[in-house]
Amino acid sequence: MDAATRIERALSTAVARVQGPNGPPKLAEALHYAVFPRGARIRPRLCLAVALACGEDDPDLTDAAAASIELLHCASLVHDDLPCFDDADLRRGKPSVHRAFGEQIAVLAGDALIVLAFQTVAWAAGSAPQRLATLIDTVGRSVGMPRGITAGQAWECETEVDLAQYQQEKTGALFAAAAVAGAAAAGVEAEPWRLLGERLGAAYQVADDIRDVACDVAEIGKPVGQDQAHARPSAVTLHGMDGALRLLKELAAGAVASIPDCPGAGELRAHIMSESQRLLPKQLAQRAA
Amino acid sequence: MDAATRIERALSTAVARVQGPNGPPKLAEALHYAVFPRGARIRPRLCLAVALACGEDDPDLTDAAAASIELLHCASLVHDDLPCFDDADLRRGKPSVHRAFGEQIAVLAGDALIVLAFQTVAWAAGSAPQRLATLIDTVGRSVGMPRGITAGQAWECETEVDLAQYQQEKTGALFAAAAVAGAAAAGVEAEPWRLLGERLGAAYQVADDIRDVACDVAEIGKPVGQDQAHARPSAVTLHGMDGALRLLKELAAGAVASIPDCPGAGELRAHIMSESQRLLPKQLAQRAA
Repeated sequence: MDAATRIERALSTAVARVQGPNGPPKLAEALHYAVFPRGARIRPRLCLAVALACGEDDPDLTDAAAASIELLHCASLVHDDLPCFDDADLRRGKPSVHRAFGEQIAVLAGDALIVLAFQTVAWAAGSAPQRLATLIDTVGRSVGMPRGITAGQAWECETEVDLAQYQQEKTGALFAAAAVAGAAAAGVEAEPWRLLGERLGAAYQVADDIRDVACDVAEIGKPVGQDQAHARPSAVTLHGMDGALRLLKELAAGAVASIPDCPGAGELRAHIMSESQRLLPKQLAQRAA
Repeated sequence: MDAATRIERALSTAVARVQGPNGPPKLAEALHYAVFPRGARIRPRLCLAVALACGEDDPDLTDAAAASIELLHCASLVHDDLPCFDDADLRRGKPSVHRAFGEQIAVLAGDALIVLAFQTVAWAAGSAPQRLATLIDTVGRSVGMPRGITAGQAWECETEVDLAQYQQEKTGALFAAAAVAGAAAAGVEAEPWRLLGERLGAAYQVADDIRDVACDVAEIGKPVGQDQAHARPSAVTLHGMDGALRLLKELAAGAVASIPDCPGAGELRAHIMSESQRLLPKQLAQRAA
């Protein structure tokens, strides 16, 4: 089964498991709406690729870890889009959750997705309980305080912000968790995989800043020009477009260089190069090459 | 060490662990503010009492489970108080988190507290990894979909609501988790403890409805008359004050009757009777007796 199929199946299973017939209908619908149809799924794809490179021996646990990472990503999008933050109308080419279901359901959907992320790994860890604590801690750190997504988002409420730390927490943390969780699900020492994830996260953040300036709504399925509109730190503002493209290239190369020794290092290198091609609009990908 | 000391110590340890020197200051402060100074801590007290009744053999894990339950309770209060829900100005006798820190920080504080709840049990489960999956699933169910706190809260967005189900999810679920988690932390079969928690949760909900009508702000540290103001279902609206007091008495007796066989059943019965005295203002406690 290919990675995309595994990820969609794991996400469908997780979401279906909390949609009993007697649950509140709007929240149940909003959970599904926030997760499907698929976004790029770049984080769970990284998680799977790392587990495979490490010699995966428990595919159900890998799939659960990958789904958990994506559920946390979806939760962060739902809450980031709320009126008190970005007040975004569009996400993945359709109305944001609070536009479609109201603000109350959007707050609850984000909460329920965070909870589901942790349950998903617990449900799959029956055959390898000793891996569960590492997985829970890993995904928790990536989204909690003091260095996860909530911390990153909270810097938007502070007057003095370190751009590198802000981006590491807001984006890098979940990429790092994807890599670390992939290794942990495969039962190998997980921490050496953090650097790869952090570098990929940094590369992705720069690519996202570039797309915010260079793409239109139809290409990325969400409003553009948001960094400028919200006066948010951005690699393009800081380095210019050419500087941002150069930085992206350096970060991707650094990521590939940081892959720890493992049975499937070659395939993983190829995966990362292929994924990095997907990050930019075509005309810019050529300019960056 | 008495229960109150154990609980405050476990909560302090958990909150301190995510307040590194480099975290975003406002969110770090808001996390502490949302958890301290103490509320009644009635849910973690139940968790500890059940673990002790079951012959607790891993106190650190019990303390972590109890703290996890209370962190989820605090998270739900922070999000329930948000402008899009109750828009409450006061909580535990001081400004609600969004009044003190702004709406953005309040959303993030709730998120970070949910994450911390799961991390807290994972950090303590090193010596008993096989208990961790049960604990994660137990606390997850109590706050997630389809029957946890988020589900209960989501019924406020629906036109047709079953009062019993709404109250079970909004309040009973976390009491049930407190009882089940106490047993799971002690390494005994946990599910037989659910009924006790559910009945105590139902009793607590009725007591809360009564206090919303019969107390003033100074007594309970939060706005009163909220059920009527928000047209929320309430045991007092449904059964009148005398009927609600009768119902509370029946539920407390039913809770005591549902205690499973265990080494410390007698002490647990005494704990529950003592806790139920604390739920009502004095004049009503006499009327209910």
